[in-house]
Amino acid sequence: MTKICGDAENFATSALRGFASIYRDIVQPVRGGVVRTTPGKRGKVALVVGGGSGHFPAFNGYVGEGFADAAVAGDVFASPSTQAILRIAREANLGGGVILGYGNYAGDVLNFSIAAERLRAEGIDTRMIATTDDIASAPASEENRRRGTAGDLPVFKIIGAAAEAGLSLDEVEAVGRRANAQTRSFGVAFDGCTLPGEREKLFHVPKGRLALGLGVHGEQGIDELDLMRPSELAAILCDRLLKEAPANAGSRITALLNGLGSTKYEELFVLWEAIIPHLENAGYTVIAPLAGEYITSLDMAGCSLTLTWLDEELEKFWRAPVNSAALKRDEMAGDYRASLPVLTEAPAVYMKSLTEAGRKGGRCVSSMMTRLSAALTEAEPALGQIDAHAGDGDHGQGMARGAAAAAKAARAAVEAGSGPSTVLAAAADAWADRAGGTSGALWGAGLFAFSTAFDDSAVPDAQSLSLGLRRAMEKITALGKAKKGDKTLMDALEPLVEGFEGGLRKGYSIAKAWTEAAEASTLAAEATKDLLPRLGRARTHGERSKGHPDAGAISMALCARVIAHELSEQAVK
Amino acid sequence: MTKICGDAENFATSALRGFASIYRDIVQPVRGGVVRTTPGKRGKVALVVGGGSGHFPAFNGYVGEGFADAAVAGDVFASPSTQAILRIAREANLGGGVILGYGNYAGDVLNFSIAAERLRAEGIDTRMIATTDDIASAPASEENRRRGTAGDLPVFKIIGAAAEAGLSLDEVEAVGRRANAQTRSFGVAFDGCTLPGEREKLFHVPKGRLALGLGVHGEQGIDELDLMRPSELAAILCDRLLKEAPANAGSRITALLNGLGSTKYEELFVLWEAIIPHLENAGYTVIAPLAGEYITSLDMAGCSLTLTWLDEELEKFWRAPVNSAALKRDEMAGDYRASLPVLTEAPAVYMKSLTEAGRKGGRCVSSMMTRLSAALTEAEPALGQIDAHAGDGDHGQGMARGAAAAAKAARAAVEAGSGPSTVLAAAADAWADRAGGTSGALWGAGLFAFSTAFDDSAVPDAQSLSLGLRRAMEKITALGKAKKGDKTLMDALEPLVEGFEGGLRKGYSIAKAWTEAAEASTLAAEATKDLLPRLGRARTHGERSKGHPDAGAISMALCARVIAHELSEQAVK
Repeated sequence: MTKICGDAENFATSALRGFASIYRDIVQPVRGGVVRTTPGKRGKVALVVGGGSGHFPAFNGYVGEGFADAAVAGDVFASPSTQAILRIAREANLGGGVILGYGNYAGDVLNFSIAAERLRAEGIDTRMIATTDDIASAPASEENRRRGTAGDLPVFKIIGAAAEAGLSLDEVEAVGRRANAQTRSFGVAFDGCTLPGEREKLFHVPKGRLALGLGVHGEQGIDELDLMRPSELAAILCDRLLKEAPANAGSRITALLNGLGSTKYEELFVLWEAIIPHLENAGYTVIAPLAGEYITSLDMAGCSLTLTWLDEELEKFWRAPVNSAALKRDEMAGDYRASLPVLTEAPAVYMKSLTEAGRKGGRCVSSMMTRLSAALTEAEPALGQIDAHAGDGDHGQGMARGAAAAAKAARAAVEAGSGPSTVLAAAADAWADRAGGTSGALWGAGLFAFSTAFDDSAVPDAQSLSLGLRRAMEKITALGKAKKGDKTLMDALEPLVEGFEGGLRKGYSIAKAWTEAAEASTLAAEATKDLLPRLGRARTHGERSKGHPDAGAISMALCARVIAHELSEQAVK
Repeated sequence: MTKICGDAENFATSALRGFASIYRDIVQPVRGGVVRTTPGKRGKVALVVGGGSGHFPAFNGYVGEGFADAAVAGDVFASPSTQAILRIAREANLGGGVILGYGNYAGDVLNFSIAAERLRAEGIDTRMIATTDDIASAPASEENRRRGTAGDLPVFKIIGAAAEAGLSLDEVEAVGRRANAQTRSFGVAFDGCTLPGEREKLFHVPKGRLALGLGVHGEQGIDELDLMRPSELAAILCDRLLKEAPANAGSRITALLNGLGSTKYEELFVLWEAIIPHLENAGYTVIAPLAGEYITSLDMAGCSLTLTWLDEELEKFWRAPVNSAALKRDEMAGDYRASLPVLTEAPAVYMKSLTEAGRKGGRCVSSMMTRLSAALTEAEPALGQIDAHAGDGDHGQGMARGAAAAAKAARAAVEAGSGPSTVLAAAADAWADRAGGTSGALWGAGLFAFSTAFDDSAVPDAQSLSLGLRRAMEKITALGKAKKGDKTLMDALEPLVEGFEGGLRKGYSIAKAWTEAAEASTLAAEATKDLLPRLGRARTHGERSKGHPDAGAISMALCARVIAHELSEQAVK
């Protein structure tokens, strides 16, 4: 629904004034439309486009150098009047004749035709090009009944570039007719739009469904299907269009994936990712494509794919520079083929330890990480359930994902012969990269701080373990700002650190000191069920977590126990 | 709701790949983000921005010359990982130090802080700028608790321009901190958004209400009000922001009116029209403002206004050229003050008749038009009711509006001393301009064709009236494609034309011939109740019009009777 409206009958005019204020370097308003602020050369063919309002950037946004000389804006979804077209075409005329460009709708055809006749009577040579790109609106045998939709953009852009290049009226018209004849669109709608001032949608698409070929003003479509995956939708759009490839058309095309208003950029990019392989597999080279909002229909949800088959001349004009609100590009002289980018990444390089002891230490750390990963994967559902009481239930998933990545990275470092510091740092970074969320960042930073206490040429000893553990806690405290009692992982980490240090002071072995500390950590983690969270997102749902322990503390204690078990085994071996 | 999604967990990555395919001349994807395709000069300060996905064009769309060197994209609404930030900042580093720019959200602060520390440890001088422009998110006394929203765009754009200009890291940081300190945003939400893969909205705003200061992820707002007029909304946005003008700030500002996704361009332009007088009345000069979608939140409905107070240096960097997906502008060297454009129009110039007879004829025509206007204004509700059975009920309104404009134009032409052809042509053009719809275009074209039969130096005679009437009918037939029996105005027009011609042939006076023809026209108009429409929009609602006459035929017959009455009176005088 239109939420910012005012008097509905002034909506289109008010929008035009606001638009012209923002883009005053490009357009100048006249009653009923806009003309270029800096007109083209005398004698140039003038392109005047237009149609109903409510489709921004069509049509006012198409005005500018290398595109239209003027645009005529009717009321919302209504053709501009004959008089408005006349007035603005007279203003735009540079002595080289006028091309009137508009979509093939009855009201527009009527008004632009009357205006063309009047202009000719006034001695202005005037040609009309009505776009007919929407293949869903009539069969191929009745092309002149087809509506014009997003094909407006490539067709008018190409005409505008041809006019800017100084071609004669006959030549520009011929280029325009060819561009229109080689342009096809096919669209789907997910939901209708609401006219300014109205409370009800002008038309609907049932929830969970999509309408094939539904017009941007609600004109009847050709079929209705369930919502589908991007790959399936891409296949439908591409197959329908490619089946109607113009005869003798070459293998170079451009594509426009257009959003109608509420279907957002990210969705269009996701769909584009699925479209490009279809076009490439069909043998096409896609030149300088577009994905975005180029002709909308208020807040309608839906999108369309437009293909224009390019010959050498059409490609030249498609690539020509343009400076309008809708599209601003420099000359595209280079290689503008679209294809799916490959996400390259430099492979990790791990330093090799110079000593056998160091390499042994690295293997110990890696073995720990593998154990942690196995234990956290097993505990994932249980941790998720605990987390759901206070957070969004993804703690188990994040921990399992982080630990798995850490174990994998640690093994890779071990294979490179790294020592314990390098192995743990690699594991820490992988954990931070994959776990996600606050706890992922804290675990990654904590483990990395831990790694700085190790010596790559030695097996970690009691001293370095104790120092590492403390450094990890200090880092997590500094970053997380949590203290003991805040119902966070700190409630389990502090008893672990202090227990381990205390055990060592009592002369315990590493395994014994750690095992006792892990037990204290576990008790403390369970005791968090009597606390209320005081920090972060969980705070707002604090009440809900009453009587349940903190998932972060529980997973911390679990890791402490796993390590205790591993230390005991390693000591035995 | 997100309708094009696929696997929700891959949504952000897939969108990133699609985006990079479309904008491959500007960006190159790396895992977790994008870097510039053509990197800046060695030694330049590198700006790395980032945050959660779902806010396009933030943040990937901010990458390009004169703006950011790289962007890091987290999952939807989630901070990017420390590792992703690290990886991409290393890639973007040009040896001049790195600025990390992000909105002030806990997750982003955590990850960017850890990354900054790691980068510094690697010898890369790194500074952090967290935007804090959202004045609704915390009181002015706690500025460091404020969230970053659409202020990201001006702040990062200014930083990017300063870096591109070759300023040192210290200098760029200082410019950035000043830009952030001088930037304020205030937003309203009309409805929430839906996360990819979810069926329910993440948060709601009650229907017919707006939430002041609601965050783009649904963070709590400060108040809720009924939907209001654009002028009221503009007042709230401007008043809140201007109250917080930075101390010692000058009178030059820039403004960004940002749409969140479903609040469309036309609505933003309508609101902008209401905003600009507020800023100007407060004594501000607004430099190169923007209105559009610069940071969205999936399909959320709402908008925000951002003001940046400009000193000389900030203005220079705001005006500097930029080439990114979100914003592409050349150097703005001229006068880019925003103001509301005035819609100028050349005043109509009407030719004066050379004879008294011609001027008398002009007055006759004008008098007719005034009568028609009065009659159609009176008949407006009745015509509207008839039209509602088949059309959208606006026929009466269009006819009344068209006739009133025609009468006014005719009087102006009479005042200039014009003859009947000029007066009727002026009336015809005004009718076409103001009536709207198909009938407005047809009436305008018909009356204009009628006017060509008159001689500007003579009072219209039987001959010219008969010829004009036929020309009008032929024109309307050619344009409207309707025949008698199609349930259109043709059903009333044809009996009028043929009746008038027949009466003249029988030797009747003009008044008598027209009066009898008007009676025939009226009977025929009423008889259209037994017809079904065969053309145009009405066809689809044909069944609904059963038993009701056609509004176009009824209004045509009404006009015929009014003219008959006027002709009889004039003949008497």
